[in-house]
Amino acid sequence: MAPSSTTATGVGILVKGDAIARPFQDELKRELDGASRPPRLVGILATSGAPSRMYAEFTRKACTELGFDFVLRETGAAVQGSDAGEGDGAEEAILEANVDPAVDGIMVYYPIYGGTQDQYLQQVVSPFKDVEGLHFQFHYNLYHNIRYITPASLLAPAGSMGLSDAPLSAAPPPGTVKSILPCTPLAVIKTLEHCGVYNALLAYGDRAYGRTILVINRSEVVGRPLAALLANDGARVFSADIDSIQEYTKRPPGDSKRFHARHVVRPSALSLEECLALADVVVGAVPSASYKVGTSNLKDGCVCINVSSEKNFETDVRQKASIYVPAVGRVTIMMLLRNLCAVLFLFVL
Amino acid sequence: MAPSSTTATGVGILVKGDAIARPFQDELKRELDGASRPPRLVGILATSGAPSRMYAEFTRKACTELGFDFVLRETGAAVQGSDAGEGDGAEEAILEANVDPAVDGIMVYYPIYGGTQDQYLQQVVSPFKDVEGLHFQFHYNLYHNIRYITPASLLAPAGSMGLSDAPLSAAPPPGTVKSILPCTPLAVIKTLEHCGVYNALLAYGDRAYGRTILVINRSEVVGRPLAALLANDGARVFSADIDSIQEYTKRPPGDSKRFHARHVVRPSALSLEECLALADVVVGAVPSASYKVGTSNLKDGCVCINVSSEKNFETDVRQKASIYVPAVGRVTIMMLLRNLCAVLFLFVL
Repeated sequence: MAPSSTTATGVGILVKGDAIARPFQDELKRELDGASRPPRLVGILATSGAPSRMYAEFTRKACTELGFDFVLRETGAAVQGSDAGEGDGAEEAILEANVDPAVDGIMVYYPIYGGTQDQYLQQVVSPFKDVEGLHFQFHYNLYHNIRYITPASLLAPAGSMGLSDAPLSAAPPPGTVKSILPCTPLAVIKTLEHCGVYNALLAYGDRAYGRTILVINRSEVVGRPLAALLANDGARVFSADIDSIQEYTKRPPGDSKRFHARHVVRPSALSLEECLALADVVVGAVPSASYKVGTSNLKDGCVCINVSSEKNFETDVRQKASIYVPAVGRVTIMMLLRNLCAVLFLFVL
Repeated sequence: MAPSSTTATGVGILVKGDAIARPFQDELKRELDGASRPPRLVGILATSGAPSRMYAEFTRKACTELGFDFVLRETGAAVQGSDAGEGDGAEEAILEANVDPAVDGIMVYYPIYGGTQDQYLQQVVSPFKDVEGLHFQFHYNLYHNIRYITPASLLAPAGSMGLSDAPLSAAPPPGTVKSILPCTPLAVIKTLEHCGVYNALLAYGDRAYGRTILVINRSEVVGRPLAALLANDGARVFSADIDSIQEYTKRPPGDSKRFHARHVVRPSALSLEECLALADVVVGAVPSASYKVGTSNLKDGCVCINVSSEKNFETDVRQKASIYVPAVGRVTIMMLLRNLCAVLFLFVL
């Protein structure tokens, strides 16, 4: 698919998230037209931070446009005039939504506490309503390239549900549904499909073969699952964080044992500059205003995707990049709403 | 119970972990005498770090002494002469142990990756074999003061297993077993019982009432669960980390709603020095060699417990402290082995 938004002035093309999101938006509208009632999404806002409030309003707007039922549940420091602490009541609000039969999906506006305490909250969300795809079991499925599941597997201890080497197909085998993928990494994959980085001529599950992709950030929410997804799809991936650079690649056929993840991770001896010189695609996901990828280090004609709420690329990035996507928030919301439609099937089977 | 190891030279008493661990060691020996076969613990060592290797040998020694069957599974950078990366094979080793019917309990030597990736691995361990008590569901039970569970509840989404306001009793009601408590926080509780901070004259579930306790560290593995346990037992707890100080207290009767945690957390306006001036007990759990609690800031006659592998107290701590416990590692191992005996019952019911 060709980039749909261009500025042909000798510099690289600017592709906006709206253009990437549009086909998904149309698909969701069609899906809702056939529904007996609009699925209900509860957003839980428990902090006073302006970016989380903005993201909540952004979700509400998208839901309203498309016909989803959005309910914002404010608690703790998010309640105007409250002297409650940051995060107060967040866990209770999740638990109430977990057991409320009128609620189909739950999203929580992170960061609340940051780090491992947020990861605790992510496990409080029932996997049957986890439209963000942050539950442990979904991450486990992602790392093991388990794409289709029975809903019962979400309640079983890890590893007990049998082998992960079913042949890949683009549609779920009978009796199974798609495992939920975390929305931000999934939005990046859809962005790369839109930008022609994924090659539809190649077999499903191998469409990033031949690409070298640098992912800057290795958090459990974005960087690590994204690197694994890309490697599972055949890319050579460099995963960079503050301390180290790792290389993620698809595990060769025949090397796979029962409990192997489907990607191999090796320490890399390359520097960040050397990775940038090799990378066909650079994904910036560093949540810091001061972090910038130097344009001079980019490979000519590479594709640059900014996933952070801050700008990880310099303003002249298109002097080197053939395509620059400054934000994927709109695509992420569409993936969230797709996941909302998908979790409904976790109950049906 | 009186401290059993003293140096009565005008300074505070030194209480060693061995003395605290002894009664549990005797109890475990008696328990094993009646067993048909020794329970098997698999330790998973996936890093080259010397402290993890030492801890593994320490576990092996304790198991051998008491008659438990300990198997050390080395992988990744722990394998001598290997050029594998830190953590390589750790997840696979856990998954193999999860499904191996000969394995009763699993412990993993952390840190491996640090932070949220370690927390991912903690969820890979089957809750039915999680002797460290690090599975999400055990933390959830701890925060909600759910002390007795049915094994089936370990596989249900959070909040779906009904109310948490069963009256407290010191023994599990019929058809239930004790929820597994994370071993390090549990070791601190047992240490405080040994040191007379818990008052056995008070009702079970209220035995820390009247005590002010400062816990320095708020990690999901040690500080936050410990603060919640102490507050659930009636203490006034200050929880300090780098950014903030919070106060944890027991939720007053009548205030409790279905999904409330049983403790209340409020931001505290006190400084660390002010907390130290109030604290009857100071628990240091900061994993840093340079972090020291100033002796001059301690309240006269307080109890100081060092949980970190580093020393968080100055060498002259006993000039102010009435009791000083420099390490709880031996107690932690006993709690781990008690948990190993307890997880066997998760299958029996």
